[in-house]
Amino acid sequence: MRVAILTVSDRSARGEREDLSGPALRALVEARGWQVTQTAVVADEREAIRAVLCRWCDEDLAEVALTTGGTGFAPRDVTPEATQQAIEREAPGLAEAMRAGSLAVTPHGMLSRGVAGIRRRTLIVNLPGSPRAACESLQTVLPVLGHAVDLLRERPQAEGGHRQMSA
Amino acid sequence: MRVAILTVSDRSARGEREDLSGPALRALVEARGWQVTQTAVVADEREAIRAVLCRWCDEDLAEVALTTGGTGFAPRDVTPEATQQAIEREAPGLAEAMRAGSLAVTPHGMLSRGVAGIRRRTLIVNLPGSPRAACESLQTVLPVLGHAVDLLRERPQAEGGHRQMSA
Amino acid sequence: MRVAILTVSDRSARGEREDLSGPALRALVEARGWQVTQTAVVADEREAIRAVLCRWCDEDLAEVALTTGGTGFAPRDVTPEATQQAIEREAPGLAEAMRAGSLAVTPHGMLSRGVAGIRRRTLIVNLPGSPRAACESLQTVLPVLGHAVDLLRERPQAEGGHRQMSA
Repeated sequence: MRVAILTVSDRSARGEREDLSGPALRALVEARGWQVTQTAVVADEREAIRAVLCRWCDEDLAEVALTTGGTGFAPRDVTPEATQQAIEREAPGLAEAMRAGSLAVTPHGMLSRGVAGIRRRTLIVNLPGSPRAACESLQTVLPVLGHAVDLLRERPQAEGGHRQMSA
Repeated sequence: MRVAILTVSDRSARGEREDLSGPALRALVEARGWQVTQTAVVADEREAIRAVLCRWCDEDLAEVALTTGGTGFAPRDVTPEATQQAIEREAPGLAEAMRAGSLAVTPHGMLSRGVAGIRRRTLIVNLPGSPRAACESLQTVLPVLGHAVDLLRERPQAEGGHRQMSA
Repeated sequence: MRVAILTVSDRSARGEREDLSGPALRALVEARGWQVTQTAVVADEREAIRAVLCRWCDEDLAEVALTTGGTGFAPRDVTPEATQQAIEREAPGLAEAMRAGSLAVTPHGMLSRGVAGIRRRTLIVNLPGSPRAACESLQTVLPVLGHAVDLLRERPQAEGGHRQMSA
């Protein structure tokens, strides 16, 4: 499994703040035995975010593209809007499950505006910006990402559950 | 209550696979004392799905239109996108409740991309493709469908709860 | 905190029914120590709803704009559609949390079609129309509204949690 990680942060993009969330996500992905094939840091600019995500999907550089940052209420938080422009098919259940999971930890979980969806054969998932919240949200969806990608890539399913889940 | 059931499946449309989900849903609907007035099987083609749904609503052939299949991650799964094009007003709470219910059974529940919404006086609800998952999801929303249709059709409410729920 | 409250109801707009939900919400807001700076009652007309919400946001007359009514299944219930036209960035977690909370009280909770989102520096939240359901839904999001507005207005955070939550 090839995973790409995009950190969205004005301050990290300007080199004023170390990107802690990207490396934290990478550690989690690699602990799963997966490979991080792309990483990038961009400012909170809708077009910059959209362009990176589209390139990763269109050039098939990863099966899953994770973003961290820009999903909140600050005026420059536009990662969900940029992601909406990139995806062709939305997968709302992933975002709902991540929010429901974080709501169990803190009521602030309901403030995450993240979305998830599919562009071509790549699944894009928005995660929060703090290292802790990003990792918690990834943990929520991690158990289903392999199956999601198998369906998306039309790979044979281990337990013969393909027909059931694809529908 | 008149219910229409649309099975979305390439293989069933080609006659290569028996449609098990449509009949399973019909049994559940009839056990409720409701009438299945329309059934159809179409391929995973956005325009074909949209056209059937629109005709059922525009010709008022049912109060509720259920779909089964095409809500997953496979490349040809486009039932939610076709449904979005058919509906005029979204009813996200139904889809959220079905996913939350199926998440309690399996983490794969978060992969359902189904939507629900209203076109004219008909409620459209996307259900998963497997017979079991389709029936479980229908069971989740079944208790509120009668009330939803009463509001949609401006029928008097049994318990005088109209004002409360319509608002 | 300045809060605006919009009651959406044909009958209240015609003076045929007393608006009970608006005052009930006002009492809850004031009990929190916040100020209600705007109130209005409009009919279930998409353009009328949209126009009031946009004016309140564009003239910065409130930090939070609450609506009550028009989120259900009746043919004239169009508050979510009007709100979608007003907002620039959606905040789906607030609507999901309100529905999940009301589902714990009644299965009819899944019929609320309310949305939440941001226009400029104002957060708009759709609440149901009945006084009881409107107040219950407001109670669900009340604990996070102050923090949401702090982020939206780029105000310093009390507990230094700004960086964590803004992302």
